[in-house]
Amino acid sequence: MEFLRAVSSAEALAIIGSFRADPMKETTGINDVLHRILSEDVVSQEDIPSFPRSLVDGFALKVKDIQGAKETNPSFLYVQGEIRIGEATRIELEDGKCVYLTTGAMIPEGADGVVMQEFARPAGDAIEVTKTLHKGENICFQGEDIAKGAVVLQKGRKLSAFDVGVLSVIGMSVVPVYKQPVAGIISTGDEIVSVEEAPPFGKIRDINRYTVANLLKGSGAVCNFLGIGQDTVDSIADKLQLARECELIILSGGSSKGQRDCIADAVLRLGGEMLFHGINIKPGKPTIFARLWGKPVFGLPGHPNSCAMVMMRFVLPLLRRMKGEEGYRERTMPGILSTNIPSTSGVEEYVKVTIREIDGERYVSPIFSKSSVISSFVDASGYVIIPEGKDGCEKDEKVEVYLF
Amino acid sequence: MEFLRAVSSAEALAIIGSFRADPMKETTGINDVLHRILSEDVVSQEDIPSFPRSLVDGFALKVKDIQGAKETNPSFLYVQGEIRIGEATRIELEDGKCVYLTTGAMIPEGADGVVMQEFARPAGDAIEVTKTLHKGENICFQGEDIAKGAVVLQKGRKLSAFDVGVLSVIGMSVVPVYKQPVAGIISTGDEIVSVEEAPPFGKIRDINRYTVANLLKGSGAVCNFLGIGQDTVDSIADKLQLARECELIILSGGSSKGQRDCIADAVLRLGGEMLFHGINIKPGKPTIFARLWGKPVFGLPGHPNSCAMVMMRFVLPLLRRMKGEEGYRERTMPGILSTNIPSTSGVEEYVKVTIREIDGERYVSPIFSKSSVISSFVDASGYVIIPEGKDGCEKDEKVEVYLF
Repeated sequence: MEFLRAVSSAEALAIIGSFRADPMKETTGINDVLHRILSEDVVSQEDIPSFPRSLVDGFALKVKDIQGAKETNPSFLYVQGEIRIGEATRIELEDGKCVYLTTGAMIPEGADGVVMQEFARPAGDAIEVTKTLHKGENICFQGEDIAKGAVVLQKGRKLSAFDVGVLSVIGMSVVPVYKQPVAGIISTGDEIVSVEEAPPFGKIRDINRYTVANLLKGSGAVCNFLGIGQDTVDSIADKLQLARECELIILSGGSSKGQRDCIADAVLRLGGEMLFHGINIKPGKPTIFARLWGKPVFGLPGHPNSCAMVMMRFVLPLLRRMKGEEGYRERTMPGILSTNIPSTSGVEEYVKVTIREIDGERYVSPIFSKSSVISSFVDASGYVIIPEGKDGCEKDEKVEVYLF
Repeated sequence: MEFLRAVSSAEALAIIGSFRADPMKETTGINDVLHRILSEDVVSQEDIPSFPRSLVDGFALKVKDIQGAKETNPSFLYVQGEIRIGEATRIELEDGKCVYLTTGAMIPEGADGVVMQEFARPAGDAIEVTKTLHKGENICFQGEDIAKGAVVLQKGRKLSAFDVGVLSVIGMSVVPVYKQPVAGIISTGDEIVSVEEAPPFGKIRDINRYTVANLLKGSGAVCNFLGIGQDTVDSIADKLQLARECELIILSGGSSKGQRDCIADAVLRLGGEMLFHGINIKPGKPTIFARLWGKPVFGLPGHPNSCAMVMMRFVLPLLRRMKGEEGYRERTMPGILSTNIPSTSGVEEYVKVTIREIDGERYVSPIFSKSSVISSFVDASGYVIIPEGKDGCEKDEKVEVYLF
């Protein structure tokens, strides 16, 4: 097997980051676009609103007609008519007059303000206005929400519930999005049995299948589980063949050197190319990255804890690129360390933490656990990164917590 | 119509919070439980791991046999055998001997440490160990990850990808969860047309349907859209009848007083009871809450901006209770105001903001927009709450941003 040294975290991210990703496009109905990624800039073909609308229940008027109006000296305006919501009015407002309308109704030609009902006293077929207005008050003007021709949402944006509202308001019922990448997931290891089986003594259930698949699913991939491979090059190569149509291939397992070599050898036998073999991180060092059939292949550590950390730090960023997402920001939270955290210089370490809030200050405490232990994730709020150049972190140091 | 005064934000939350919610239970396969809510405490029936395992590739040994071992004075141990991963070994380790094993393999009876391969020099059918160990080093003991009988995940927990890993490790392939509440969504207003239609002059497209449905969906509800009701009591009552089987009913529309009264009258005609009519908040004041057929009914403002804010502040907390979620925490982020924000005393105000990070400090700037404007959500990172007792916020004040 071709020898490759372990790379630093930054080198690993650079190698993964230079892997070519060409997200594919499709369209989908507006009912199913939540959290999908826009594949084109969305430009409004219309002014929104398409006509000036009232923001309140009241009377549309000419602001000049009520100059100086107050409780003790109201302005007197005849009611010229009424405009109902949803109605296209042809009323042209005359001087000294007003038009009754409700919230959302069209503002008549000539009006430049709407006085709320509570500041208009009825007086026969007229009203007394007890308050002045500034020009444009209580009106949402044509194009004030969205102007025709404006880019309302940019390519690469992950669509929120509000964004879907914006798509609907401009009438985009069919939405251009990127396809969701299809990931093939393979667990490996002679010791692994499926979750439905009672593991014989000496064997364990497959955990990584579920953490890997759900982390991918939660980040917008479609997951195919391709089964459990044994620790032979043949068995793993067979499983890899099943992943030929997938866009991203994730193997987990390979805790021991022998197991890892099987994965690497299987990738090479099928014509793949190793891109790195090992990252100087803790946990997660025994991570493999390769190219096979032009697709990215990760060989993740078997230890569930390590496997999950490498997923978050190295696999999900590639997935986001593959699905065309732009402007992703990690959810982080600043806090103060409640205790020292030792670390090894030359290795980037990820330490799971809890956050406790006391008097508006957030205190961060490490959870120390063995790399085979998955249960520590249950209690953790997130993790902190101790850079490879650093010799641990000290109590009272300000740190950034990456939230789960 | 029965008269009800507007309530404060706290009163509204108390009334909504006292609405009885009895989440229903079901079971679902482990492949489909991501983000679902556990309906029972999960107790492990087994020790995990179920046998002591090696954390490294190396040699299991008795720590007392290598006391004082170092590079210049190694300890000499015969290799008694090998244990392969996944194998149930019957080896009992003898004094002065060791057993080769790989990561994850079972620790033999009698061993209390594993020395890594790199600290063991081969010497014929023996090894020279060049380092001492502490007791238990490089071993994950039986039950060390999860002890038999331990509550590993609590009722009411929203299942993360890691949690699903934990469920798999203890063999829980069928998971007890709460049913997802079914919400019926009704848009109302003579001015509203569906997104597929070109709105005639004076009318607008239905936005709230999409923001409401996607906010609910993103929080774990199943949504049924029941159509657009006209501004008559008959039309709205007909739509409400369609929602009889839903567990939560959300109407939007009713920007004007007349429209709101139609919604309230329709609820009353069908035998419903108004619980409040108006909340002293901005935006979102014209919000109705009622009980109909024992189910919660919200009448939300027609203004998209107001409707979305009320969804987040008042509807989603009830939904979370209806789906049995416990321990939910709003995602917030502290920051420093970059400018004054005025507000009206006696009204709780929600102001959308952007967050900018400069030199590790987060600066928060308000986005001022009219309540009919949905596009402001596109740029906002979240919102700040100005309590009703407060007269605005000042530049340089520390605020908490509720993130979208």
